[in-house]
Amino acid sequence: MDLHRREFAALVLGAAAGLSAAGPAGAQTDPLPSWNDGPSKDAILRFVLATTDASSRDFVPPEERIATFDQDGTLWVEHPIYTQVVYCFDRVPTVVKAKPELAGVEPFKTVLSGDREAIAKLSLDDLLKIVGATLSGMDVDAYRDEVLAWIGGARDPRWKRPYTDLTYLPQIELLKYLRGNGYKTYIVTGGGQDFVRTYAERVYGIPPEQVVGSAGGLSYGYAADGRPVLVKEPKLLLNDNNAGKAENIHLMIGRRPYFAFGNSTGDRQMCEYTKAGHGTRLAMLVLHDDDKREYAYGPAQGLPDTRVGTFTRELYDEAEKDGWIVVSMKDDWKRIFAFD
Amino acid sequence: MDLHRREFAALVLGAAAGLSAAGPAGAQTDPLPSWNDGPSKDAILRFVLATTDASSRDFVPPEERIATFDQDGTLWVEHPIYTQVVYCFDRVPTVVKAKPELAGVEPFKTVLSGDREAIAKLSLDDLLKIVGATLSGMDVDAYRDEVLAWIGGARDPRWKRPYTDLTYLPQIELLKYLRGNGYKTYIVTGGGQDFVRTYAERVYGIPPEQVVGSAGGLSYGYAADGRPVLVKEPKLLLNDNNAGKAENIHLMIGRRPYFAFGNSTGDRQMCEYTKAGHGTRLAMLVLHDDDKREYAYGPAQGLPDTRVGTFTRELYDEAEKDGWIVVSMKDDWKRIFAFD
Repeated sequence: MDLHRREFAALVLGAAAGLSAAGPAGAQTDPLPSWNDGPSKDAILRFVLATTDASSRDFVPPEERIATFDQDGTLWVEHPIYTQVVYCFDRVPTVVKAKPELAGVEPFKTVLSGDREAIAKLSLDDLLKIVGATLSGMDVDAYRDEVLAWIGGARDPRWKRPYTDLTYLPQIELLKYLRGNGYKTYIVTGGGQDFVRTYAERVYGIPPEQVVGSAGGLSYGYAADGRPVLVKEPKLLLNDNNAGKAENIHLMIGRRPYFAFGNSTGDRQMCEYTKAGHGTRLAMLVLHDDDKREYAYGPAQGLPDTRVGTFTRELYDEAEKDGWIVVSMKDDWKRIFAFD
Repeated sequence: MDLHRREFAALVLGAAAGLSAAGPAGAQTDPLPSWNDGPSKDAILRFVLATTDASSRDFVPPEERIATFDQDGTLWVEHPIYTQVVYCFDRVPTVVKAKPELAGVEPFKTVLSGDREAIAKLSLDDLLKIVGATLSGMDVDAYRDEVLAWIGGARDPRWKRPYTDLTYLPQIELLKYLRGNGYKTYIVTGGGQDFVRTYAERVYGIPPEQVVGSAGGLSYGYAADGRPVLVKEPKLLLNDNNAGKAENIHLMIGRRPYFAFGNSTGDRQMCEYTKAGHGTRLAMLVLHDDDKREYAYGPAQGLPDTRVGTFTRELYDEAEKDGWIVVSMKDDWKRIFAFD
C-alpha cells in the first residue's frame, strides 16, 4: 500500500459509520481485506471517498446512494450452471409425479434421463419451460418454503457445500463497506426474485425489498378456506436481463445507481445506465479468470464461449472505453470464499 | 383520554425513537395531535405498541415492519377528479400540437372543448387513452421534469392551492409516527408510480423506491448522442388497483405488510392480504363523510356512487366483519389540512 492509498484508506475509514481505528495507534482496519492492493481496490476506495466526503465536489446525499449488484457470477458461483436451474431440475420428478403425461414430453424427458450431456444442451426455451412448470400454480408462501428447504439441503458437486457457501468473500466485504458508507445495496439479477429473496437477507444482508429480479405474473385469489393467496403464474412479467436490468432498476427503485457491479453481457445496460448519470459513478465487472480457485471462461480471454455468464470481447472493449473497472478474480481477489 | 389510553400513549412514546417527554413532568407529546381521541386513534396506538414492544407476544422485528398507504383519497384529496388526470388533461394541448390529427379524435376532442360536463363523463378507457398519449414516447427524466414543473404551478380550483398542499395532516403525522417506530412506509397507489415519485419524498417523506404504483412499460435505448435513455411506452405493465395492489406488494416489496390504509374498493385486496398474515395486523379505511371541510361521497353512506374513490356498502361490511377500522374524516380528524 503506497502513501496515496494509505491516505485514502484513512479518510474513508474515518468517514465510515461504525468503523474505527483498531490495533496500534495509526493502524487502520482494511475494509476490504480479501481484495489485493491494486487498481480495482483503489477505484472502490476512491469512489466511496469522492461520493461520501461532504467537502467533495462529487458528494452524493445519503438517500441517493444506490449500489446494484448482479448475483450469478458476481456475488456467487454460476458455473457449471445457475443454482436456480439446478433447483428446477431437482423439482422435475415432483412435477412429473403430479402430471405423469410430462414424462414423455421434452424437455422433461431429457431431465429425467439424467443424461448430463443432453441436459447441458437444453436451450434457453427448454429451461424456461422447466422453470415455468416447476413453479406455476404454487402460492408464493409454499414456493418460499420449498426453496428454503431445498437450499438448506442441496450441495454443489465440486465443493460439496451448500450453494450459499459459494458466495465471494471480497463481494460480501464490498457490500458491507458500501452499506457502512450509507449506500443502499440492491441485487439486480437475471434470476428469479422470489428465489433469491429466500436467502438474500441471511447471506448478503440484502432484504427482500432490495432484490430486483426476473419475475412471473401473480394472481390474487382465495384458498378453499377463504384465505387470500398469491399464486405464481407461468407467464413472464419481468425479464431482468440486458436492457431489462436498466428498465427494472427504474421500475423497482426509481433512482439511477451510483455504483454497479456485474460479470457478463447481461449486465451491460445496467453498467451503461449507471455510468451515464452525472457526477462520479463506478461500474465494475468481474472476469472469471481463475481456473484453479474457481473457473475461467469467456471469449474476452480467448476461452470458449459459454451460455452461462458470457463475457464477450465487445463487452471488454466497451468497459475499457467507458472507464468501467474489470476485476481479475485471479489477481484482485486474495481470498475467494470464506471457507478457503 | 382515559387512564388506559394514557398508559398506552406513555408506553408507545417511551418506546418511540427520537420522541421524549416534553413539557411539565408527566405530560407526553401526542404523536397524533390532528387525530381526535377515539377508537380509531386508539387502534393505531395499540397496534404500534403491540408490534414494537419487545416483551409483546406480537412483537415484529424491525426489518419486517412494513406499512402501506394508498394515496388518492387516503393521503390527499381525490375529488372531484384524481390530480394525475388533471395533469394529463393539461398536457393534451401540447400532445395535440405535436400530433394535430388528434384534435378531431375522441377523447382528445372532448378534452380540448373544455366542456366540463362532457369531460366528467369520459370513460376509464378514454382516460387511459389520454394517459397513454400524454406520457408515451418521453424519456423518464423528461417526464419527471415535466411533472415537477406542472405540480409546482398547478392549483386546485376549490382551495386555490398547490395539489401537494391538499395532503391530510393526520396522515402525515401517522406516517411519521410509524417511521418513528421503525416502520418502513410505502405508498401503494393506483396512480402512476413515476408521477407520484416526483413529489413523494418532499411531501410524504417517502423515497421513490418506496412508491409502488401503476406503471407502463419502459424501453431502453440510446439518444442521438449515444446516451442511454429509458423511454415510456404506451403499454400498461402494472395495474396497481384491486388485486394488483396485493400482487405488486409482493412483486415490489416481497413482504406482507403489518399495516395498510386505504379508502376505496381498490384497496380491498391490500387490506385483506395484510390482515391475513399471522400476528397483529391493522387495516384501516378512511370514509369521506365531511362535506364541509372536504367531501362526502360513496354508497356506504347512502350517498351517490362516484367513479373516484368508490366506497361501497359491501366494502363497509367486509371491513366490519374482518375487524378493519373505518375512520370517519368528520369525527376522527381534528384538523384535515396543515393550512386549516
